[in-house]
Amino acid sequence: MEFTVQQIADLLQGQVQGDGNAKVNRLAKIEEGAPGALSFLSNAKYEHFLYTTGATAVIVSKNLELKQAVNTNLIQVEDPYTAFSALLEVYQNALAAMREGVEEPCFIGDNSTIGEKHYRGAFSYIGKNCKIGSGVHIYPHVYIGDNVTIGNNTVLYAGVKVYPDSVIGSYCTLHAGAVIGSDGFGFAPQKDGSYKAIPQIGNVVLEDNVRIGANTTVDCATMGSTIIREGTKIDNLVQVAHNVEIGRHTVVAAQTAFAGSSKVGNYCTIAGQVGVVGHISIADRTIVGAKSGISKNIKEEGTFVQGAPAFDYKQNLRAMAVFRKLPELQKQIEELREKL
Amino acid sequence: MEFTVQQIADLLQGQVQGDGNAKVNRLAKIEEGAPGALSFLSNAKYEHFLYTTGATAVIVSKNLELKQAVNTNLIQVEDPYTAFSALLEVYQNALAAMREGVEEPCFIGDNSTIGEKHYRGAFSYIGKNCKIGSGVHIYPHVYIGDNVTIGNNTVLYAGVKVYPDSVIGSYCTLHAGAVIGSDGFGFAPQKDGSYKAIPQIGNVVLEDNVRIGANTTVDCATMGSTIIREGTKIDNLVQVAHNVEIGRHTVVAAQTAFAGSSKVGNYCTIAGQVGVVGHISIADRTIVGAKSGISKNIKEEGTFVQGAPAFDYKQNLRAMAVFRKLPELQKQIEELREKL
Amino acid sequence: MEFTVQQIADLLQGQVQGDGNAKVNRLAKIEEGAPGALSFLSNAKYEHFLYTTGATAVIVSKNLELKQAVNTNLIQVEDPYTAFSALLEVYQNALAAMREGVEEPCFIGDNSTIGEKHYRGAFSYIGKNCKIGSGVHIYPHVYIGDNVTIGNNTVLYAGVKVYPDSVIGSYCTLHAGAVIGSDGFGFAPQKDGSYKAIPQIGNVVLEDNVRIGANTTVDCATMGSTIIREGTKIDNLVQVAHNVEIGRHTVVAAQTAFAGSSKVGNYCTIAGQVGVVGHISIADRTIVGAKSGISKNIKEEGTFVQGAPAFDYKQNLRAMAVFRKLPELQKQIEELREKL
Repeated sequence: MEFTVQQIADLLQGQVQGDGNAKVNRLAKIEEGAPGALSFLSNAKYEHFLYTTGATAVIVSKNLELKQAVNTNLIQVEDPYTAFSALLEVYQNALAAMREGVEEPCFIGDNSTIGEKHYRGAFSYIGKNCKIGSGVHIYPHVYIGDNVTIGNNTVLYAGVKVYPDSVIGSYCTLHAGAVIGSDGFGFAPQKDGSYKAIPQIGNVVLEDNVRIGANTTVDCATMGSTIIREGTKIDNLVQVAHNVEIGRHTVVAAQTAFAGSSKVGNYCTIAGQVGVVGHISIADRTIVGAKSGISKNIKEEGTFVQGAPAFDYKQNLRAMAVFRKLPELQKQIEELREKL
Repeated sequence: MEFTVQQIADLLQGQVQGDGNAKVNRLAKIEEGAPGALSFLSNAKYEHFLYTTGATAVIVSKNLELKQAVNTNLIQVEDPYTAFSALLEVYQNALAAMREGVEEPCFIGDNSTIGEKHYRGAFSYIGKNCKIGSGVHIYPHVYIGDNVTIGNNTVLYAGVKVYPDSVIGSYCTLHAGAVIGSDGFGFAPQKDGSYKAIPQIGNVVLEDNVRIGANTTVDCATMGSTIIREGTKIDNLVQVAHNVEIGRHTVVAAQTAFAGSSKVGNYCTIAGQVGVVGHISIADRTIVGAKSGISKNIKEEGTFVQGAPAFDYKQNLRAMAVFRKLPELQKQIEELREKL
Repeated sequence: MEFTVQQIADLLQGQVQGDGNAKVNRLAKIEEGAPGALSFLSNAKYEHFLYTTGATAVIVSKNLELKQAVNTNLIQVEDPYTAFSALLEVYQNALAAMREGVEEPCFIGDNSTIGEKHYRGAFSYIGKNCKIGSGVHIYPHVYIGDNVTIGNNTVLYAGVKVYPDSVIGSYCTLHAGAVIGSDGFGFAPQKDGSYKAIPQIGNVVLEDNVRIGANTTVDCATMGSTIIREGTKIDNLVQVAHNVEIGRHTVVAAQTAFAGSSKVGNYCTIAGQVGVVGHISIADRTIVGAKSGISKNIKEEGTFVQGAPAFDYKQNLRAMAVFRKLPELQKQIEELREKL
């Protein structure tokens, strides 16, 4: 896609300083700009790049006062960051809209329906009795088991695996290799010390606007549903066990794990490599620092914890600071004991 | 599948209280019961749900004395939990038995054989010279490399990848995205600081009744075999490196990693996010707490460890309790020093 | 492939002691040798196996003095370990060279090119406008998005997913289920507490000789590139976030995670289950112990750190040793306080 600088300025309700007929065909950081690229300058710290950039055009604040001449064309707007973000979104939506149609071979089982304007990649698989909305993108090697429901405009990237009976909302994004609905990890110990699998007959429910990262796994419930609520964003390689419930608009970073039947509130922020034990609850707006282990209920909203097991963030910082000096403290205690 | 309440009662050798002709077509928790659902009541704590449930039928103890009238139909049995578990198993076996046949297109290489009553999903791939048993379920997008052996009644869910020369037993379950037999992570440092891959010519052996979780990875041995023995259950996103041996009937929770050549005993319980360093041994019946790091041999059977590095569980609990108070202890030491 | 012992000896410039016409068809550990197997003896510790091995031939040092008679055939060389490694490499290269051709069905989009002597497995997918070199192996269920570039002799094992616009060098190895180019985890908080995805328009660049483990995920950059430089080796289930840069010839063990925009130097060794926070730099030749959390810049080359948060390795060891004794130290402090 190629645009003139003037077209971009019109879209952003900005003013052109320079050649409005110059053409741009991609976006780039200002320090990496090359002919054909459109960049933006928001943070004053990077202003020096404006005078050396190879980009064909740069979106700048209309209040910016140039300190020297520029070789690029300027698009002056109210707020360059917002303008650029808006542009990015237009760009991505345009790219997404271009992806429509069905590549062969692909597989769709009996009695399954799918809405209009969708994309189904080659080697994608849809089982029986599925109800799939419109505008959905199903990339190559996606597997959708029987009886799955998917809302409108949801995107399943290459190789996503959705087990039977899962329910996925609208405007969800599932990244490559994510697994939705694998069996919960439940086994009944037998008298001889072996284990017998407890049948897992529940499912997974992802509400609208949920985002699941690459190679993340979400197990189905033993009975009932494992639920991830509206707007929650989950990073790569996260484990969500059976019967877990994660609230609305919560963010979970990479490699975190939630054990069976744990409940996470709304508007929480869970950093990376965190572990949450089973059958506990975490209040709304909780913040959990990286690598923490949550071993008991967090009842108070807005708590910030750190450590394994986790406790108050600041208290943990102070304890860690002393931890480093433990050999010294030990020596001091010995000296004291000798003196007495 | 639809059954009458009487049919279920007959299967469970129970008595119907109410309408034996009422029809049920799925299983549900008692608190989530709706028309058509069959539930059970085992724990007295949930008895109040019995009087409000929307389920069409509920399996109850024959000794239960009703405190008020019920709107549902009762199936009275000796032990509701056992009865319901038995039913679940019948249900899952029935579902599994229904899955048979071959969906096209799928790929099978020269000289490979597969037993009767199997399922092969569309886009599944079987290489050359494979020997695959009867009753095996191979879901869509499964890849089975050359010279692989698989026993009877093993299930490979969508997108499982099995490298050449792997040996998989009977009644194994491999969940979506699991990788069996990827190269061990072994590199010989060169004089210039670069690395050269050490060829990995071993394989992976999974004995009977092994369960591998979604997106778990099991590397092949450098030479010889990486082995997971009979009945061992492994959760999602676990890493099993080259030449690891895990004993019989051991349970491993999500995101745990075993480094190269580590050996784990029988009947162990390894919690989530544990790390085990290479070339060490863990005795039978060892219990390892979540997030622990095992850095040396555990020689005594039945040991329970916690921490990174791990030591005795109770000792670790006590040390962690003091850890939180370190700033206070430091202050006390300072005070003591001032006094002296 | 079958060879005579003499053929192997000629290849390794060694001398046969025994029957040069005996035939070998596979490699095995000396303690697991069986008829047809070729083994080697390098470490004197294993010499006793030489007198009992069932292997048809064993590569030994020409300086080895036998302590008793052997039932196997010897190939005497300068350095058995080097000779065997060389043989392994010949063996693997021969296996690799055998894999050539195209299995159907497979998919290749408009305007994509691929060099000679390549392998494309059934159900592999290549998008539009891709440039793929010669000698490349693309296993079944590999997905390569639009506009991807791949150098010569790179191997993508089954189910690797490469998002559009990625750039992959020559002689790279990507193990099964690896995901290259999934969206970076970036969201702009909205006034109502919900999140809006920040479009991720960058890509991933893997330079030559990079190795990516099974089910590892490498996110694309928000803008610009996430880069893994020449010769770096990454294990299974590792997370590399958006805009991360990892230097040359660095080794990263399983389940480690690099948060957004972190920079790792050349020749580093990062153990397993490590976490690196965003926007920090790690100097060349840094060594990071298992399970560590790197929370600030490491500026000095060759630093060895451990712990979460990480600090000097030896200092951490000493602190951990005291940590175990904390309950005892607490008691000593109490006693001191009572005395005063």
